[in-house]
Amino acid sequence: MIITLLTDFGDVYPASMKGVILCINPAANIVDISHSVPRHDIYAGAFILMACARYFPSGTVHIAVVDPGVGTKRRAIAIKAVSKDHGNHYFIGPDNGILIPAARSIGEPEVYELTNKKLFDQEVSSTFHGRIYLHRWAYISKGMDIADVGRKISDFVDLDFGKGKKLGSVVEGMVIFIDGFGNILTNISSDLISFQPGDIMVIDNKPVVFQRSYGFCKELEPLALIEATGIWRSL
Amino acid sequence: MIITLLTDFGDVYPASMKGVILCINPAANIVDISHSVPRHDIYAGAFILMACARYFPSGTVHIAVVDPGVGTKRRAIAIKAVSKDHGNHYFIGPDNGILIPAARSIGEPEVYELTNKKLFDQEVSSTFHGRIYLHRWAYISKGMDIADVGRKISDFVDLDFGKGKKLGSVVEGMVIFIDGFGNILTNISSDLISFQPGDIMVIDNKPVVFQRSYGFCKELEPLALIEATGIWRSL
Amino acid sequence: MIITLLTDFGDVYPASMKGVILCINPAANIVDISHSVPRHDIYAGAFILMACARYFPSGTVHIAVVDPGVGTKRRAIAIKAVSKDHGNHYFIGPDNGILIPAARSIGEPEVYELTNKKLFDQEVSSTFHGRIYLHRWAYISKGMDIADVGRKISDFVDLDFGKGKKLGSVVEGMVIFIDGFGNILTNISSDLISFQPGDIMVIDNKPVVFQRSYGFCKELEPLALIEATGIWRSL
Repeated sequence: MIITLLTDFGDVYPASMKGVILCINPAANIVDISHSVPRHDIYAGAFILMACARYFPSGTVHIAVVDPGVGTKRRAIAIKAVSKDHGNHYFIGPDNGILIPAARSIGEPEVYELTNKKLFDQEVSSTFHGRIYLHRWAYISKGMDIADVGRKISDFVDLDFGKGKKLGSVVEGMVIFIDGFGNILTNISSDLISFQPGDIMVIDNKPVVFQRSYGFCKELEPLALIEATGIWRSL
Repeated sequence: MIITLLTDFGDVYPASMKGVILCINPAANIVDISHSVPRHDIYAGAFILMACARYFPSGTVHIAVVDPGVGTKRRAIAIKAVSKDHGNHYFIGPDNGILIPAARSIGEPEVYELTNKKLFDQEVSSTFHGRIYLHRWAYISKGMDIADVGRKISDFVDLDFGKGKKLGSVVEGMVIFIDGFGNILTNISSDLISFQPGDIMVIDNKPVVFQRSYGFCKELEPLALIEATGIWRSL
Repeated sequence: MIITLLTDFGDVYPASMKGVILCINPAANIVDISHSVPRHDIYAGAFILMACARYFPSGTVHIAVVDPGVGTKRRAIAIKAVSKDHGNHYFIGPDNGILIPAARSIGEPEVYELTNKKLFDQEVSSTFHGRIYLHRWAYISKGMDIADVGRKISDFVDLDFGKGKKLGSVVEGMVIFIDGFGNILTNISSDLISFQPGDIMVIDNKPVVFQRSYGFCKELEPLALIEATGIWRSL
């Protein structure tokens, strides 16, 4: 079974999550998506998870923990999302929206609040809920049907990046995430953009060349492009 | 077999350790605890290993290499530690104390100096002892009893973080490690702390609110808390 | 099957490469060599790959993507290199020299341009060629003989670090890579160095002590040494 991990825990802390997973399932294949999500940045975490989740095989369990409310009464949720192209994906994490865009990128999400008493960690840790989510996942992975983890809910915290809007010749959108290369990823959908390679766009009052890819621009020259994936149609 | 790695090697260098491990045992499941231990900081390395080791399954081999004395006559040691709760854990690394707190977090350590001639690497590398430790581990993992690696010793370099001390209303302890979030982890044991959530503590002449968890404090407000694990009872 | 990854992608982006690999081969054992190669630095990437590749078992596939020309008409190549000591190693990446020193560290490289129509990704991504290389690799790993990926070529982009040169008492070389510890790794071959431990070398007009290993020098004192591996005989 493949399990992905996305957290804002940085170095060191993810290792004990992995130890716990391997105690439960020594054959688990754990893949780090990132542990460097900007601290407490649910939007960035949601975006990164959405960008990566669908590349993983059917059956993958995605655990995401970016949780400014850790230790308070935040609900924990599990989601199942299914599609013909991507198969079944499972998501486990806090009910703060972080899982929703990724689940929607697969298919219509079925969301369950984790309320089944069996699911609760015996050793309750007030600061490190990452382990609690894992224990809850453990029961699911051991054959508990997702519908038995608790009650199905529709009042989960939703999160939608939108797709920007076009007002005459102006396109307006939101910055979601700045990656390690300095790429500024926005929520502007590619269908709002009608530029051709070589055209000059004006972004924040500065001229920027629209290009098909990085290889076409000079070093240090800013450019705008449509991103690689079907999902990351950022500017 | 699960093998954890903890080093101060940073990027790049751990990959060749993994290559060597996979040559010996292609089925090894290698988990990085951290390769960003502050360079040569045995205390920080010992603390991180102690915090993580017990979450791994019985039978795990923990390899830790933070070794300011690499290339000199530092002894190499192997440790077996056993407990009912955590099973058998093995530790391999330099005799500089780094393995001791983690081994003690499992159970009473049996320490062996690696002296068996068979254990020595044919290609002796003077700077990169990480590989040497791996080769020595290889013989053990291939069925050599740990008692055959060399002589049992009791004069190993010990390392004990202590637990701080209480003098009237003052608690005094030692900073062991500052993590990537800016948490200052100390050796002060939770049984020395009698604060209630909301109480004001004075740390280094500055008032700090004692809280149950991060979710209860405002952004950028310093707080003090008892850490998540039974072991990390830091302030 | 063991697959190593070396990129300049930083955080986040490698995860979707891993997802794609695991879709194709759920049993793949993926090892990160580094994703922190200095952006677009082909020499650094080639050096790191060369330093690590030969420690991996026979049959390993090494995928390296450091590609300033991504999205342009850069050719993609696959290489097979064989030796008695290291077995068969496969390399896949752009034709910009990055794979060559690593392949040569194993044995005489057979280089193929990927031209077989079957090898091309259906979803052509203009910015993220990492996925394209993976898809091409997939056909090879599924049993396509490397000689069927395309035509054998000899006009590949070559990359040779050289070995420095000795002019009287002066040795001249090139800096290839500065690692995270501040080690300045050069292309100067150990056979050009006739110093004994304790001798004083003059590097860039500053005196530096030549030592056998780090353990022999004082803190913050610069030293020069012959590096650990047979390959990294840097100064």
